[in-house]
Amino acid sequence: MRCLKCGEKAVINMRQHKLALCKSHFLDWVPEQVERTIKRYRMFTRHDHLLLAVSGGKDSLSLWDILLRLGYSVDGLYIGLGIDGGVKYSANSHEFALVFAKEHNLLLHVKDIKAEYGETVPELTIRTHRGRYKPCSVCGLTKRHVMNQLARSQGYNALLTGHNLDDEAAILFGNTLSWVGSYLIRQGPVLEADRPGLARKVKPLCRIYEREMAAYALLRGIPYIQVECPHAEGSTSIYHKEILNKLEADRPGAKLSFYLSFLHARRDGLFSPSADERAGMVHICSNCGQPTSAPELCAFCRMFVAAEEHLDSNQLDGL
Amino acid sequence: MRCLKCGEKAVINMRQHKLALCKSHFLDWVPEQVERTIKRYRMFTRHDHLLLAVSGGKDSLSLWDILLRLGYSVDGLYIGLGIDGGVKYSANSHEFALVFAKEHNLLLHVKDIKAEYGETVPELTIRTHRGRYKPCSVCGLTKRHVMNQLARSQGYNALLTGHNLDDEAAILFGNTLSWVGSYLIRQGPVLEADRPGLARKVKPLCRIYEREMAAYALLRGIPYIQVECPHAEGSTSIYHKEILNKLEADRPGAKLSFYLSFLHARRDGLFSPSADERAGMVHICSNCGQPTSAPELCAFCRMFVAAEEHLDSNQLDGL
Repeated sequence: MRCLKCGEKAVINMRQHKLALCKSHFLDWVPEQVERTIKRYRMFTRHDHLLLAVSGGKDSLSLWDILLRLGYSVDGLYIGLGIDGGVKYSANSHEFALVFAKEHNLLLHVKDIKAEYGETVPELTIRTHRGRYKPCSVCGLTKRHVMNQLARSQGYNALLTGHNLDDEAAILFGNTLSWVGSYLIRQGPVLEADRPGLARKVKPLCRIYEREMAAYALLRGIPYIQVECPHAEGSTSIYHKEILNKLEADRPGAKLSFYLSFLHARRDGLFSPSADERAGMVHICSNCGQPTSAPELCAFCRMFVAAEEHLDSNQLDGL
Repeated sequence: MRCLKCGEKAVINMRQHKLALCKSHFLDWVPEQVERTIKRYRMFTRHDHLLLAVSGGKDSLSLWDILLRLGYSVDGLYIGLGIDGGVKYSANSHEFALVFAKEHNLLLHVKDIKAEYGETVPELTIRTHRGRYKPCSVCGLTKRHVMNQLARSQGYNALLTGHNLDDEAAILFGNTLSWVGSYLIRQGPVLEADRPGLARKVKPLCRIYEREMAAYALLRGIPYIQVECPHAEGSTSIYHKEILNKLEADRPGAKLSFYLSFLHARRDGLFSPSADERAGMVHICSNCGQPTSAPELCAFCRMFVAAEEHLDSNQLDGL
């Protein structure tokens, strides 16, 4: 297999694009694609103050690398979730994020959940009984809360995440199987800050396959945490990725076409705007001041009220 | 495994309903479910004049049997498509439909495509180059045309088809992968006669799994054509059924939930009515008088105009 641009030996063949590239052309091609995505969906400009959620994995660190190469100035945010799972998952991820930031002389905000809220994400999960013994639901809630808070309080114009096409297609697939209107309607490359207190969220890697991001990190020599989160095993999103990988193997381009045709259909008015139930998310949490659909406390802050109530009732029991 | 109703030996276990039944209770359960579907979606009443498209397969013949047991009066329509495929597919299907109609003293309309239009469906496909060398597209177009014409000309109140849940879920899955709005919006248990000249179409088996329909035909001793259409192999709909079967095997009820949650979301206003491009289907074909989105001839009649043009140009070539 030869590079379509220069005839040198290809390192990757992207069947969905009918495009094989050598190392050098592939490492140019990825940032070009990301730049096109940023422009196509009007994500941000070089004048914007950008915050990237950095997990220490291949997608977020590669995205940071790509944005620097493209001339954007981007700060990072690492959230210490306190996940160990026998592989020191959080500690090691943190290290990869720190090393990258230090090497490139970048600002990395660090928020440690245990230090700030007294419990790690797995501890919060056990105490609150949220999410069927898996911390994924509490983890998502916590990350959304902390990311939004920092992006808003520090005046960032956009909050970037490293979701790649496989992530986006798997989320879309799950939302399609259950047909939850408000999730379907709001999924996309850009989530506008259309509620007071909500940061603008963008996903510059939404058109790049996971396999390509892994190749990019490897070929650029970016050190990243290679183990999966220990709680990811058996998750629905991985299951949906497997189904989509089967579709993709049989029909190259199936994942991309699924995601893009959804975006086109939505842009062309397939969905009724009134079906977005989350449009009613107009309350402000009385504790943290962030937007919420609940009338008093947001879902994140409710986890801690539950703790206090639990404590109160334990104390009463002791009397 | 025991019957949940009487404790006798079960012949079928429906994991999605957590329901195992003996032969006798299963053969009662299926018509009960069909009756509930007919009522839930207001398909028709016992006063209606009903036409059922009968292919000679398990679904349509079982549906005929079920409707008779439920006290509906239903005429049949068999369409001779002229498919041989080395297994005399059409001739044998016709025989199964005839035998059932005769045994139950039922009216079976027969429309033979070759006799009426001069060519079989495979011959039409080859001449018109429609559908990438597979007759499935021409076959669907032809059946829709002939069914609608007969249902309208004979004043039937509804046109019934034997689509089961697996058929419906596979169609929905395909429409979801490509996000074609007008197809998504119009798929369902009932397609109203909301354009002049269009028959009302209903699918009373839309909530019954294919496996259950096969069991019903077998246990009721209904002879039906057991071979698949020779052109079905490698078709997209079978491929999508395989994917859904994998989902179902891993998560019993996945197929039913996918289809029903779609229907609920649609009923609750997920889709914008303006996204139904076929709402513009208001023309009347100048040849056959049936509704069409094209300004002059419908897609079916265009196949024959093409023939005449082809003939004309051949004659010109000969001069």
